[in-house]
Amino acid sequence: LRQGFPEVIYGEGKTKEQILAIMKSLAEESRHNVMATHVSAEKADFVRNELPDAVYDEVSRILYIEQKRSEPVDETRRILVLSAGTSDIPVAEEAALTARLMGNAVDTCFDVGVAGIHRLFAHKEEIVKANVIIVTAGMEGALASVVGGLTDKPVIAVPTSVGYGASFHGVSALLAMLNCCAAGVAVMNIDNGFGAGVLAGKINRMR
Amino acid sequence: LRQGFPEVIYGEGKTKEQILAIMKSLAEESRHNVMATHVSAEKADFVRNELPDAVYDEVSRILYIEQKRSEPVDETRRILVLSAGTSDIPVAEEAALTARLMGNAVDTCFDVGVAGIHRLFAHKEEIVKANVIIVTAGMEGALASVVGGLTDKPVIAVPTSVGYGASFHGVSALLAMLNCCAAGVAVMNIDNGFGAGVLAGKINRMR
Amino acid sequence: LRQGFPEVIYGEGKTKEQILAIMKSLAEESRHNVMATHVSAEKADFVRNELPDAVYDEVSRILYIEQKRSEPVDETRRILVLSAGTSDIPVAEEAALTARLMGNAVDTCFDVGVAGIHRLFAHKEEIVKANVIIVTAGMEGALASVVGGLTDKPVIAVPTSVGYGASFHGVSALLAMLNCCAAGVAVMNIDNGFGAGVLAGKINRMR
Amino acid sequence: LRQGFPEVIYGEGKTKEQILAIMKSLAEESRHNVMATHVSAEKADFVRNELPDAVYDEVSRILYIEQKRSEPVDETRRILVLSAGTSDIPVAEEAALTARLMGNAVDTCFDVGVAGIHRLFAHKEEIVKANVIIVTAGMEGALASVVGGLTDKPVIAVPTSVGYGASFHGVSALLAMLNCCAAGVAVMNIDNGFGAGVLAGKINRMR
Amino acid sequence: LRQGFPEVIYGEGKTKEQILAIMKSLAEESRHNVMATHVSAEKADFVRNELPDAVYDEVSRILYIEQKRSEPVDETRRILVLSAGTSDIPVAEEAALTARLMGNAVDTCFDVGVAGIHRLFAHKEEIVKANVIIVTAGMEGALASVVGGLTDKPVIAVPTSVGYGASFHGVSALLAMLNCCAAGVAVMNIDNGFGAGVLAGKINRMR
Amino acid sequence: LRQGFPEVIYGEGKTKEQILAIMKSLAEESRHNVMATHVSAEKADFVRNELPDAVYDEVSRILYIEQKRSEPVDETRRILVLSAGTSDIPVAEEAALTARLMGNAVDTCFDVGVAGIHRLFAHKEEIVKANVIIVTAGMEGALASVVGGLTDKPVIAVPTSVGYGASFHGVSALLAMLNCCAAGVAVMNIDNGFGAGVLAGKINRMR
Amino acid sequence: LRQGFPEVIYGEGKTKEQILAIMKSLAEESRHNVMATHVSAEKADFVRNELPDAVYDEVSRILYIEQKRSEPVDETRRILVLSAGTSDIPVAEEAALTARLMGNAVDTCFDVGVAGIHRLFAHKEEIVKANVIIVTAGMEGALASVVGGLTDKPVIAVPTSVGYGASFHGVSALLAMLNCCAAGVAVMNIDNGFGAGVLAGKINRMR
Amino acid sequence: LRQGFPEVIYGEGKTKEQILAIMKSLAEESRHNVMATHVSAEKADFVRNELPDAVYDEVSRILYIEQKRSEPVDETRRILVLSAGTSDIPVAEEAALTARLMGNAVDTCFDVGVAGIHRLFAHKEEIVKANVIIVTAGMEGALASVVGGLTDKPVIAVPTSVGYGASFHGVSALLAMLNCCAAGVAVMNIDNGFGAGVLAGKINRMR
Ligand SMILES: Nc1ncnc2c1ncn2[C@@H]1O[C@H](COP(=O)(O)O)[C@@H](O)[C@H]1O
Ligand SMILES: Nc1ncnc2c1ncn2[C@@H]1O[C@H](COP(=O)(O)O)[C@@H](O)[C@H]1O
Ligand SMILES: Nc1ncnc2c1ncn2[C@@H]1O[C@H](COP(=O)(O)O)[C@@H](O)[C@H]1O
Ligand SMILES: Nc1ncnc2c1ncn2[C@@H]1O[C@H](COP(=O)(O)O)[C@@H](O)[C@H]1O
Ligand SMILES: [Mg+2]
Ligand SMILES: [Mg+2]
Ligand SMILES: [Mg+2]
Ligand SMILES: [Mg+2]
Ligand SMILES: [Mg+2]
Ligand SMILES: [Mg+2]
Ligand SMILES: [Mg+2]
Ligand SMILES: [Mg+2]
Repeated sequence: LRQGFPEVIYGEGKTKEQILAIMKSLAEESRHNVMATHVSAEKADFVRNELPDAVYDEVSRILYIEQKRSEPVDETRRILVLSAGTSDIPVAEEAALTARLMGNAVDTCFDVGVAGIHRLFAHKEEIVKANVIIVTAGMEGALASVVGGLTDKPVIAVPTSVGYGASFHGVSALLAMLNCCAAGVAVMNIDNGFGAGVLAGKINRMR
Repeated sequence: LRQGFPEVIYGEGKTKEQILAIMKSLAEESRHNVMATHVSAEKADFVRNELPDAVYDEVSRILYIEQKRSEPVDETRRILVLSAGTSDIPVAEEAALTARLMGNAVDTCFDVGVAGIHRLFAHKEEIVKANVIIVTAGMEGALASVVGGLTDKPVIAVPTSVGYGASFHGVSALLAMLNCCAAGVAVMNIDNGFGAGVLAGKINRMR
Repeated sequence: LRQGFPEVIYGEGKTKEQILAIMKSLAEESRHNVMATHVSAEKADFVRNELPDAVYDEVSRILYIEQKRSEPVDETRRILVLSAGTSDIPVAEEAALTARLMGNAVDTCFDVGVAGIHRLFAHKEEIVKANVIIVTAGMEGALASVVGGLTDKPVIAVPTSVGYGASFHGVSALLAMLNCCAAGVAVMNIDNGFGAGVLAGKINRMR
Repeated sequence: LRQGFPEVIYGEGKTKEQILAIMKSLAEESRHNVMATHVSAEKADFVRNELPDAVYDEVSRILYIEQKRSEPVDETRRILVLSAGTSDIPVAEEAALTARLMGNAVDTCFDVGVAGIHRLFAHKEEIVKANVIIVTAGMEGALASVVGGLTDKPVIAVPTSVGYGASFHGVSALLAMLNCCAAGVAVMNIDNGFGAGVLAGKINRMR
Repeated sequence: LRQGFPEVIYGEGKTKEQILAIMKSLAEESRHNVMATHVSAEKADFVRNELPDAVYDEVSRILYIEQKRSEPVDETRRILVLSAGTSDIPVAEEAALTARLMGNAVDTCFDVGVAGIHRLFAHKEEIVKANVIIVTAGMEGALASVVGGLTDKPVIAVPTSVGYGASFHGVSALLAMLNCCAAGVAVMNIDNGFGAGVLAGKINRMR
Repeated sequence: LRQGFPEVIYGEGKTKEQILAIMKSLAEESRHNVMATHVSAEKADFVRNELPDAVYDEVSRILYIEQKRSEPVDETRRILVLSAGTSDIPVAEEAALTARLMGNAVDTCFDVGVAGIHRLFAHKEEIVKANVIIVTAGMEGALASVVGGLTDKPVIAVPTSVGYGASFHGVSALLAMLNCCAAGVAVMNIDNGFGAGVLAGKINRMR
Repeated sequence: LRQGFPEVIYGEGKTKEQILAIMKSLAEESRHNVMATHVSAEKADFVRNELPDAVYDEVSRILYIEQKRSEPVDETRRILVLSAGTSDIPVAEEAALTARLMGNAVDTCFDVGVAGIHRLFAHKEEIVKANVIIVTAGMEGALASVVGGLTDKPVIAVPTSVGYGASFHGVSALLAMLNCCAAGVAVMNIDNGFGAGVLAGKINRMR
Repeated sequence: LRQGFPEVIYGEGKTKEQILAIMKSLAEESRHNVMATHVSAEKADFVRNELPDAVYDEVSRILYIEQKRSEPVDETRRILVLSAGTSDIPVAEEAALTARLMGNAVDTCFDVGVAGIHRLFAHKEEIVKANVIIVTAGMEGALASVVGGLTDKPVIAVPTSVGYGASFHGVSALLAMLNCCAAGVAVMNIDNGFGAGVLAGKINRMR
């Protein structure tokens, strides 16, 4: 059914043995890439011992097997992943790697939050040229609104749980993004970089 | 900047005189369609008296002037707008009309909520053929999850404030959609049919 | 008073010594089955050392003594326990084992969430034949609505704390189930498989 | 599919013309009873002008047509509907009438809240004899817990929006009922007397 | 100023050295009893090594020095402390010991929650004879409403954080108690047995 | 049972005919005072036409019949009712009149909020002399903490719904009062002046 | 005490007669300006009939008497009031007029929200030159973060209740501003333009 | 741009190696003071091994390098930092040290909460003389309201997460401060002593 999609496992709450077993069987049954999200380093080590083809990305905590070379189908259509702060990078990388494993060309640009807006504007060209943009931000989540006003292309906003006190583990950023005054911004669940990567991938291959 | 976009006015909290003045000047300055959302019937009457070209859609409460014929640019790429119940129709129509005014071919299919899933499945073909799908649902918002599992195309979910008691004016549906187990569903603010129409329009014209 | 009911201990926050003492005295005073919920493996080991008749179910974390053989009174009236994902299984098994210890015939069917609705429909016959159905689901909790629409029999919905971000430890699923558009679905507290098992057992023995 | 069920219309947000049209066509197509909930007196008057067979119950705000005499199928199995206060009576009556229209024998007993527990105990015999019990209560919703401890039969709890301040329009009662220390109490949405009636009816006809 | 009051230290977040120092100096400066709440067993051990007069109550986690014999000033005026479940006992004992250290005669009666109301009624005489009653309950907190209806004397309700899921760490019980349909029940913060003991003590010595 | 208590009717959501009927029958059956709270001026007029003995207090919206002269039993034990602002006066007067109808001597002192603390201190003597103190305050509810630190007598705090924005209709004041750093302050539901009056009356007659 | 402050009345919930009486007496007793906030047009008309010196500002709903000419003490120190949208203007004007009545030079600049950031940047010079900046914004409240990054001067953020759905009457903007990644932004209550004006005035006269 | 500001690193979620690297490079590139907040003792030790000029303040958990002597520019303008309890001291010290590193004269005065208001009044002179006041308080956060009424100077309120139960990790204090009846109090995020220090520093150097 799902063309070009990697097979995906949600690693949270599964034992290392379960992850190994599912990855193995998926890799055999399917010719697509196989990926597991929310995987700890310790579980990844265990799986990679048995499945040497598996690669682990520490930042995004994704464990994956590339069966179908994930070189971008079309280099000219680029997905751009932005992060407001450095603490949002794990979520941003989860989005980026997910999109790459779906065969997209992905660029990243981190720590460009709105309180130092010149840093964002230094990347204006990339923003304008991107085909789809993913914005990850915690705290007040304002980056989505500014970026949404700089482009006509689809913008996907991922609130992160970065912050403390009244950030309420991402609720503050989530609400800000839902109320984004730039029209048509897509919002994902808190810390759901994976979902953003999937949506960006779906949009980017439309033609 | 914004190619193919209608000029948009947010009608809530503006007087009929203000809406008239802004619509008039936008219609003169721009060759794009002009639309105002959240406009009451009474305000619309007042504006249409002065601007006979303006059309009012009572269901979606949109008042608009079609300057550029909004016939779809490409009839083969269709946006499908679904509603779970009949009470969700105003939000669904807001999405549909917004997308139409951006030059898209839009189909609608209402009252196909999941508690009578055969009604949804009667439309399976339209769902599979659609290029982008907008799902509007209140109460438990479950329609987004089912539809998200039936298609590879982008799905945009709009929670509505339909319901009572623990629906909390749309919060229940909003949370359900954010936690959608179908990967990559885009979520909008409660009752934000307009935003869904804009995003669908942006995605639908990609190529 | 409570005919056919097992004696029940809530294990959370009780020491292993306390659980042992209460189980022992209940087993002596009553001829019913005795069960303790929310018991850790470590506490269970301690109790079973002293009470060799006690059985521990690791998945549901129930420790029990079967005094009255819990073979179903009536094999034709079956309780069906569904889970949306694999992470909901502990709650589902808590419900299933509770109902079994009350003398009911119980079937289970896991990982049939609505985002892959063909998997649910593969079990349509069991759903239609069941006398009472328990649905356990986290995240958006949509399974209750779909199942509620497929049967005339009582449906009991148990939201689970499975999910992250805006799932708010089960609140998202709880709200969805309370707003279920299928009429008459019974809702339990988050993760309360025990309560669902009790209610299903009460309903299933009515005649 | 739904044996013995009335056809049901949710009246909220529908015009009187819409309610009339739907009731008319349902009454013609189906031999079951037809009912509409959340109907104002003014809309009911309009419909009854055209459909003289329609009956309006002012307290529960249900408008119905009895096509199949709703005399109870089995007089010995009684559903008992309790209310904690007098302000909960509309919700209680919505439950009672719904169950009656499904062909059940229904008793009611109002203003038996726990702060004057002798009034509840004056009805102990009815409680013990009832086949299914529906408890409606606002404010602290404690009645469900007490009743749940007095019977082995299924108890259905409906929180009502009665109260002020920290009752939060029924949230206080809803939470209390979800946390009911009597095991296995079924909880419905705030003010959802209709759902309680449906569930009670489903349970009461099991055999 | 505060006649008959013990000197009180809030132990949470203070080091064992700090608690020792403050207790020592208070015991020297004042002739009243000295008590510290929220003290861990480990900190208590440390303090008692240096201050052998200090006594530690493991259940309530209060560490105290009795300088003024806390025998009740008036044996006929009794404060009664009730708990709904066994898990509420630490909060109940915090209230009881606080009141005792203020010179009151205190009785306790635990595990008398409303789902087994005969257990409560077995203590009806004590309830009617008590001068002030403290009710501690988690989950749905219904005990306060029932007790409030059985006596004319002041009732003080302490919600506890006992429960899971939608108990929200005591919020459910707190809301229930605030909405108590028995008039005039005093509510304290979640788990604030100390405050309840102080208030009961203030009331009990009025004449 | 309830000695010295007025008979009480909760007027909210009752028709004027219902209030009249209940007041009449209570006045006949009982020799106690009779009072109804939350009564609108219009309903009060209707009742007083039929029951000329009924008195209506416009500020507190209480309608009452004084059957037993409510002159204070003991003039030396005074209940003091404070309000932080002028908008809190209706709640304060509801408390004061309730206590008076129970036979207490009540003093009031309004608009003494903490932002102008000299105004509060101008009444220090009354505070120190009072036997029981009721504090009504909206917004940040800080008055309870300050007063609680100035007296050894029982303090009853009533949060009011006065305020806007993040006062959340009294939630802000409610939370502040529950977290009161002055030990042992009794908290009531938002706007529950009646409950505060009842509790103060119960405490004030202890001896 | 309060030098340079106007005398202030909170008009909400006061009758026109009360407002008139307080304004009159304040104007006589004090030589400062007198102002009342949250005053409806209808009440203002009544007061101005009796007090012809009173001026009513319809946008901010402030009614005031200028006794001390409110010409700015120092023209070079300017307070700048920004609004994100046009719907935020009433709150912005409340802040601006309050500051003016305290004797400050105030500039305003409206509809400069971040989704069209070029409009904000067109005013960069005013931002950099301002001594204190007040930012009013509803919905996602992002303007505060961007402005906070453009200046070293104190920034005061006022969330407004503008928006719908998940804006939750200003909660979304409030949380965003509290989590502002620009360091040291002062946050006020939702819609509290008055408070922002007072704080800006206090800061602006420091030297 | 930011004159007189220290360079700031947010230490939370950064490794000790990252903190060392950033501090080192900032200290070389800039002549300003360099500070990192939210740094654990263990990370601080690691950094100080490599950067002997770095100083660690255990209470506020700030690690800093003083490059520009942070002796106050103007000894006569004093910032006063108050804390309601002893548990609020870490937040108070974070504010104080931040302001000192910006070159301000800072005084502190702790444990002056409103329940013992004489302790606050013992410091009235310091309050009246201070140029800017920072108030840190958890639980009911009432201190801000009292202090705001005692001075004409800017007051900055920092809610802390101190408390339990319905303090909701600082939400109670936050709401109280936002609803402060003293006009113009600036509110910061929960536990954001750093932000308060920055704002106080900005205000204190105005002239
Ligand atoms: N997992 C559970 N969730 C909710 N209630 C439970 C659970 N396990 C036991 N109970 C209830 O707790 C009661 C026993 O509590 P206890 O006396 O504290 O052991 C039983 O009667 C059950 O109704
Ligand atoms: N468990 C408790 N809950 C609430 N307040 C407490 C508690 N224990 C002590 N207190 C209060 O905290 C004050 C002492 O706080 P501290 O000076 O931090 O030790 C006492 O005067 C009591 O009013
Ligand atoms: N719009 C407002 N928002 C918040 N506080 C206000 C407002 N208007 C006036 N106030 C405050 O309310 C006090 C007057 O309240 P009152 O005595 O009820 O008129 C003044 O001292 C102001 O501090
Ligand atoms: N404790 C704190 N609370 C809030 N913001 C902070 C804190 N410490 C540092 N910051 C801000 O975080 C920025 C640095 O973030 P980063 O680049 O991630 O180190 C600084 O410019 C400060 O504005
Ligand atoms: Mg940064
Ligand atoms: Mg329908
Ligand atoms: Mg699965
Ligand atoms: Mg009653
Ligand atoms: Mg028990
Ligand atoms: Mg006042
Ligand atoms: Mg605009
Ligand atoms: Mg202290």
